[in-house]
Amino acid sequence: MERAVLLLVCPDAPGIVADVAAWVAAVGGNIVDAGQTSDVEHGLFIQRVEFDHDSTAGALRASFGVVAARWDMRWQVRVPSRSATLAVLVSKEGHCLYDLLGRCATGDLPARVTTIVGNHADLAQAAERFGVPFHHLPVASRDASAAQESALTDALRDAQPDLIVLARYMRILPPAFTEEFGERTINIHHSFLPAFVGANAYRQAWERGVKLIGATAHYVTADLDQGPIIAQDVARASHADTPATLARRGRDLESLVLASAVRAHLEHRVVAYQGRTVVFE
Amino acid sequence: MERAVLLLVCPDAPGIVADVAAWVAAVGGNIVDAGQTSDVEHGLFIQRVEFDHDSTAGALRASFGVVAARWDMRWQVRVPSRSATLAVLVSKEGHCLYDLLGRCATGDLPARVTTIVGNHADLAQAAERFGVPFHHLPVASRDASAAQESALTDALRDAQPDLIVLARYMRILPPAFTEEFGERTINIHHSFLPAFVGANAYRQAWERGVKLIGATAHYVTADLDQGPIIAQDVARASHADTPATLARRGRDLESLVLASAVRAHLEHRVVAYQGRTVVFE
Amino acid sequence: MERAVLLLVCPDAPGIVADVAAWVAAVGGNIVDAGQTSDVEHGLFIQRVEFDHDSTAGALRASFGVVAARWDMRWQVRVPSRSATLAVLVSKEGHCLYDLLGRCATGDLPARVTTIVGNHADLAQAAERFGVPFHHLPVASRDASAAQESALTDALRDAQPDLIVLARYMRILPPAFTEEFGERTINIHHSFLPAFVGANAYRQAWERGVKLIGATAHYVTADLDQGPIIAQDVARASHADTPATLARRGRDLESLVLASAVRAHLEHRVVAYQGRTVVFE
Amino acid sequence: MERAVLLLVCPDAPGIVADVAAWVAAVGGNIVDAGQTSDVEHGLFIQRVEFDHDSTAGALRASFGVVAARWDMRWQVRVPSRSATLAVLVSKEGHCLYDLLGRCATGDLPARVTTIVGNHADLAQAAERFGVPFHHLPVASRDASAAQESALTDALRDAQPDLIVLARYMRILPPAFTEEFGERTINIHHSFLPAFVGANAYRQAWERGVKLIGATAHYVTADLDQGPIIAQDVARASHADTPATLARRGRDLESLVLASAVRAHLEHRVVAYQGRTVVFE
Repeated sequence: MERAVLLLVCPDAPGIVADVAAWVAAVGGNIVDAGQTSDVEHGLFIQRVEFDHDSTAGALRASFGVVAARWDMRWQVRVPSRSATLAVLVSKEGHCLYDLLGRCATGDLPARVTTIVGNHADLAQAAERFGVPFHHLPVASRDASAAQESALTDALRDAQPDLIVLARYMRILPPAFTEEFGERTINIHHSFLPAFVGANAYRQAWERGVKLIGATAHYVTADLDQGPIIAQDVARASHADTPATLARRGRDLESLVLASAVRAHLEHRVVAYQGRTVVFE
Repeated sequence: MERAVLLLVCPDAPGIVADVAAWVAAVGGNIVDAGQTSDVEHGLFIQRVEFDHDSTAGALRASFGVVAARWDMRWQVRVPSRSATLAVLVSKEGHCLYDLLGRCATGDLPARVTTIVGNHADLAQAAERFGVPFHHLPVASRDASAAQESALTDALRDAQPDLIVLARYMRILPPAFTEEFGERTINIHHSFLPAFVGANAYRQAWERGVKLIGATAHYVTADLDQGPIIAQDVARASHADTPATLARRGRDLESLVLASAVRAHLEHRVVAYQGRTVVFE
Repeated sequence: MERAVLLLVCPDAPGIVADVAAWVAAVGGNIVDAGQTSDVEHGLFIQRVEFDHDSTAGALRASFGVVAARWDMRWQVRVPSRSATLAVLVSKEGHCLYDLLGRCATGDLPARVTTIVGNHADLAQAAERFGVPFHHLPVASRDASAAQESALTDALRDAQPDLIVLARYMRILPPAFTEEFGERTINIHHSFLPAFVGANAYRQAWERGVKLIGATAHYVTADLDQGPIIAQDVARASHADTPATLARRGRDLESLVLASAVRAHLEHRVVAYQGRTVVFE
Repeated sequence: MERAVLLLVCPDAPGIVADVAAWVAAVGGNIVDAGQTSDVEHGLFIQRVEFDHDSTAGALRASFGVVAARWDMRWQVRVPSRSATLAVLVSKEGHCLYDLLGRCATGDLPARVTTIVGNHADLAQAAERFGVPFHHLPVASRDASAAQESALTDALRDAQPDLIVLARYMRILPPAFTEEFGERTINIHHSFLPAFVGANAYRQAWERGVKLIGATAHYVTADLDQGPIIAQDVARASHADTPATLARRGRDLESLVLASAVRAHLEHRVVAYQGRTVVFE
């Protein structure tokens, strides 16, 4: 038996659940996990069905198209992989990169890192340790952004990763990048968005005197720090904290929240719609 | 349209979801919320379906019986209520009682407290403030347990509450009680069970030097502190804590965890089976 | 022996701790709890010392003045009370009010509510239940704000509470109010500030698709939602949540965070400075 | 200026704080961080003072001896290090090991791993990647425990690490080991101790139906799973979890809680006494 995941969004209406369940039964499938939710504000129905079958992904897609047309669905049929490919973009801070490499090495994440791109060379050793090619794409001067962005795009087109992870990559990406890669690019922001957008989030948090710090993983859109949120978490801030210790404690949050979002994406648990996400557990 | 909730447990098998969904469609129902899970260790399927319909509870039960027989289901069809009745049993500590009374008064819980029983008189004033009858059932002597338990049973039979809540009631209940009322009795224990069973849980926790304290709400069974767990939560313990301050901070946990379990029960979100529960969110 | 609490802020320098400890010893005091922190960004030292003594508060203040002058301290000597007086301002939602009343009734908070003011009459019954005077001060028309604010000020001047609590009081207070009462007024905001300032915080949070909701208790300043933060907490938001269910789950957060801030204030654990607070635990 | 940390435990009495602060001033020290607590149950005073000075550790120890004798103190003067040495013991699961190696590589922990010992060979590659010697010390047969334990002791005596970390090392250590190394050995247990001692903690947790899973880092004593607790944390368990998914989600907890305990130890923030710890923040 093979495993497949069906994800769908459509206008809410009576009968969808029965129709989808009947389709799964008709293709000889056995549901192993299912989740659904209604977004009553937008009048939408969102569902995830994970099931075993002995058909092919192509055949499933062909037959589900009929159901989907009936309910005006936006949908995907996905096949879980044990080794999705990741491209990781970094700058100088290595905690998220090492965390991802370790998780792939132990099999905690069903993936392997096949490309690492850095606009600084600091993390070349991390790549070397795990035998992953490292592309050093520095920005030579203020005017050289376009050239660097073009080289980055080339590297990603070559690598064709299933997912691109911005692991504390400290450069703004151009609209052309988000248009081409945004739906499969996840960024980690070092605050509880929408609080403290932009740079220096821990300093901002310290100055405002908040009692918790946060991290947010989101899909990348043209609108910076505004993409659909996939995962968030917070940790307690003490009055003994300085901007520097907040940043230190924030690193654990960033690694965890990013890994959680990457896992949810790779397990086909995320449906993004209307600038929001549903993450099925 | 009326609202109903279907809860079921049965041996896992392909086709159940489709069959249940088809039944809901057949009775003209519209699913507003659904959750399901498979207990692969025990080979069981557990589902909750909340749906709108224009039939009656009796008619639903009659027609679902046919489906249930097909899959060997243990099942219930419940009708959500805006004012379920609660009997609350207390001793001397009032934080859980006041919390429940406040939640019923503001409509936060879909219930009203109709009976309060105390083996001490300390909380008579709380009952009076909210206009609820208070039954003072003290244990006159060591040998008077049976008489008190009998009076308690009489009071509960008279009141016929939908749910009995042990809100820091500090007496052990006899097997006859748990047999008659256990399935609709929720207790709050002042630790993260199974750690620190029995009395003086905060002192035990302090002596062991744990870094978190907890609270556990569970259904009541003959086996003390062993009933199916409905809700648990923890809070951070500081080295500055004494057994007394742990108890003070534990009160917030107890009130919250108990209220959470009461809400889940009243909203028909709990399925208890094999000494465990599934709580659908 | 009497208990006293010393709170101080001053420019950081070597020798302060020894000087303060020597003073406590000189007045025959025994330190039972002490906390200190350095704000290296602002070059400040902040300390809290709780100690037993057999002097008087007046004598302590007189003798500490000499130490304070030496280090250019802003300081207070406070005497813990078992029954501080609270004035609570409310609108229509009663969860924070009932929570505070319950905590005072059980002795959980070392205080009693002596005045309740509502711009709506909805919570008159809550006041009555606990035997607290209720002042109904409605805003008769758009132009009647000033009159209502004046009546409110009169009521508070009469009551002379140790602390004023805005328990979901849904009106903006004028600068004259914050100037007179701000330092002893605590507000609860229904978001993780600085995210989602202003009204409809749960709807804003839902629309942004955040994965956590929050609540923030802060001192009241002329700058709305910008006062020094005393306490914050968050709870997980599920994709099944609507703005309404977020609001429902947010109520628990609001009650808890507000009570936590009120407790910290009443136990003289909060030092506000530079738009921030240190809360000693 | 040099940095030093003073840790002390002694019978509680008035005047200690002033005496210690006077000593710091007398040696020309400037306190940068200080914490203290009273264990009223045992009548003890516990303090940590971090200070800058321009003396030597030896001179500090000599002069503090006089103060310590006066109050019957158990005490240490420690010098913070930027690169303490760690020996890590592992079996087959690598998540804690990779986490520690990554934290040392990025400078997140002020340490470097100088020795890795495995009773299985599975994690030899992890050691190789980070250039750390790997000692494969298998247990050849049931009767070969003593030989393996002896080889382990030799390896650790050779390495002379500042701290030994049991990073999911799945063998029981003999009393001779705990006697020689226990005070500087930290273990991670995969439950919220004292719940679920022994092996298969996640399966035990699943069977009991708890709603939270936990992890506990503790010093190693002869009494298995009973050593002084340094750090604990929990994560929410869902009804969709199986023993396997609990174990998967528990790995994040284990890595984090272990790293937190290692950090606290290396920063000289932990005082162990009476089977408990105080961890200063």
